Amino acid sequence: MSQVTLEGFPERVRIVDVGPRDGLQAWPVPVSTDVKIEMINGLIAAGVPQLEVTSFVAPRAVPNMADAAEVMAAIDRSRGAELTALVPNARGAARAIEAGVDAMVVFLSASESHNQANVNCARDVSLAAAAEIARMGQEAGVAVYGAIATAFGCPFEGDVPVTDILHVAKAYADNGITKITLGDTTGMATPRLVQERCRALATEVPQADVALHFHNTRGVGLACAYAGLMEGITRYEASVAGIGGCPFAPGATGNACTEDLVYMLHESGVETGIDLDALIEVARRTEAALGERLPGQVMKAGPRLRQYRRDEVRSSSGSRA
Amino acid sequence: MSQVTLEGFPERVRIVDVGPRDGLQAWPVPVSTDVKIEMINGLIAAGVPQLEVTSFVAPRAVPNMADAAEVMAAIDRSRGAELTALVPNARGAARAIEAGVDAMVVFLSASESHNQANVNCARDVSLAAAAEIARMGQEAGVAVYGAIATAFGCPFEGDVPVTDILHVAKAYADNGITKITLGDTTGMATPRLVQERCRALATEVPQADVALHFHNTRGVGLACAYAGLMEGITRYEASVAGIGGCPFAPGATGNACTEDLVYMLHESGVETGIDLDALIEVARRTEAALGERLPGQVMKAGPRLRQYRRDEVRSSSGSRA
Repeated sequence: MSQVTLEGFPERVRIVDVGPRDGLQAWPVPVSTDVKIEMINGLIAAGVPQLEVTSFVAPRAVPNMADAAEVMAAIDRSRGAELTALVPNARGAARAIEAGVDAMVVFLSASESHNQANVNCARDVSLAAAAEIARMGQEAGVAVYGAIATAFGCPFEGDVPVTDILHVAKAYADNGITKITLGDTTGMATPRLVQERCRALATEVPQADVALHFHNTRGVGLACAYAGLMEGITRYEASVAGIGGCPFAPGATGNACTEDLVYMLHESGVETGIDLDALIEVARRTEAALGERLPGQVMKAGPRLRQYRRDEVRSSSGSRA
Repeated sequence: MSQVTLEGFPERVRIVDVGPRDGLQAWPVPVSTDVKIEMINGLIAAGVPQLEVTSFVAPRAVPNMADAAEVMAAIDRSRGAELTALVPNARGAARAIEAGVDAMVVFLSASESHNQANVNCARDVSLAAAAEIARMGQEAGVAVYGAIATAFGCPFEGDVPVTDILHVAKAYADNGITKITLGDTTGMATPRLVQERCRALATEVPQADVALHFHNTRGVGLACAYAGLMEGITRYEASVAGIGGCPFAPGATGNACTEDLVYMLHESGVETGIDLDALIEVARRTEAALGERLPGQVMKAGPRLRQYRRDEVRSSSGSRA
C-alpha cells in the first residue's frame, strides 16, 4: 500500500478470519470437512495471518464442529498462519492441544444470563475454567486468548455495564490471558460503545491487548470497526463472505464480512498483508459450496476500479444520480 | 436524544430519503402509484424532513416515474416535509414546477462517459440545461439543487479526479445552485475519498453546502457516512429499506439504507428528528409491498435493546462468542 493511511487509523491491522468457526458452527445443515478445509487453506493462501479454524466443544452440542481434529490435521501450515480454536473447558483444551493449535480461545459472556444460556453455568465457573485452561496452555506451550461475549449488549439483559467488561478483562489478565477480544455477539455494538469500551480498557486494564469482533446484524459492523480504528485497535475478527447468522434474528446478518473490511482497510491505506482478489475468490467459492446467498458485498460488486463497457449496463434509465 | 454526541460528529443531521426516486426508478417491475404514496406518506409521518419523491423524466425512458405528477398530488404536505424531484431538462422542470415541488434537483456526471451513457449528452450540455433550470426555478420561486453523479468514481473511467468535482461544483455555484450533493452512483466511495472531496470543496467552493449520497454496493456505505460526519457534513441521502440496486452489479446492494443510517446516528447521539421505530415499520411495509427481500438490516433485527426470553433462542450452541 503506497497510499498514506487515513488520518487517525493505524498503518497496519491484523485480520483474524473466524468464518470456519463462528460462521459455520450454527450452520443449519452439515458442512463437509472438505469444504471447511478448502475454505481455510484458501484463506491462508490469500494471506490471512490468523484464523479461528474450529471449536473443541462437545460434538453433540455443535455437530458442525465434530470434525475439529480432522480439520486441524489437514490445514496447510507451511505459511505460518496462526491457527486458533475455541475451547469451552479442560476436556476441549486437551483435545485442542493434542490437535496442535497455535492458541486456544477461552470465552465467557459479560452478562450472567447469556453465559447461563450459552454454556449453562455462571460466569465465575467459566472464569475458573479459563484459569485452568490458561495453566494447561502454559504447561503445553500453547497460547491462550480470551473472548468476552455480549461485550456490547446482551439479548436477555439489554445494556451491559462497562464495569462488567473490565471485571472479566481483569480476571483474564490475572490469569495471564492478555490478548482479549470484545465480542459483539448479537450485533449490539455501536461506534460510541466501541469508543467507550476501548478507552476504559486502555485505562483500567492497560496490559490487555484488545481485538474487536463485530457482527453486522444492524448494518453498522464496519462503522464499529471504523470507531475501533480511530481508537488505534489493530486486531479485527471477521468472517469470509459474512457467513454466520444470528440465533436471535432469523434472516439477519451475522459476522462482519472479512473481504468488505479488508476492502475498507486497503482503500484507507491500512496494510493487512492480504491479497483482496484472492480473498474475494475464497468468498465466492464458499458461497458456491454452501449453496446459499451470503451477505458479503465486495464479492458481488467486484473491485472498486472494475471498469465496464457501455453495453454492459443493465439499464440506462436516464436519471441515475 | 439526551446522549452526548460522538466526538467529531455534528449534533444534528438532515436525512433525505431518496427511496421513492432512486430506489424505485429502475425497479424491474412496475410499482403502483398507491405503493409509492403510502411509502412517501409513511416516511413523512415518521418525521423524515426531506424526500426525493419522484423524477420528471420522459415516461418512456423511466416507466416507473411516469406517475410523477399523480404522486406529488397525493402527498401529505401538512407536516412541511420538503419535497424534491429530479429534473433532467427544461421540459421536466416545467412539469415539476406545475406539480408543486419544493425544489428541483438537476444532475450531471463528473465523468464525461457516464454523462453520455446516462443522459446521452456532454457534460457541458447538461450544465447549460442546469443553468436554464436554475433560471426557471428563480422565476417560479422554486429552489434548485445540484447533484454530481460519479463523484467518487466512474464505472467506465475508474477514478474521477477531484478537479472534475470542483469544476462542476463551481459551475453549479456560478448559476446560484449552492446545495450540492456528491453522488456515489455505483458504490465507489471510500472514507478517504469522502474526506478528500469534502475538504477540497470546503476550500475551493466555500459557498457550496454539501450533501452526501452513498451506495452500499461494496459494504462501506455507512463507513463513508462516518467519514462525512467526521468532516462535519450534515445532509445525507439514503433509501428506506435500502431499496435500489446497481445497474452494473446485478445482485449487489444499491443505496445506503435510511433506517440503518438513522440507527447509527441516534446511537451516536446525533439528532435527526425521525422516529426510528416508525421508520422501521415503513421499511417493513415497503418490503412487503414490493414482495422482495430488501437489504436493510435494522428492520430485520429490530431495535438494539430488543430483549428476548431464553426460550426464544433458535439454538443454544454452547459456543457463541
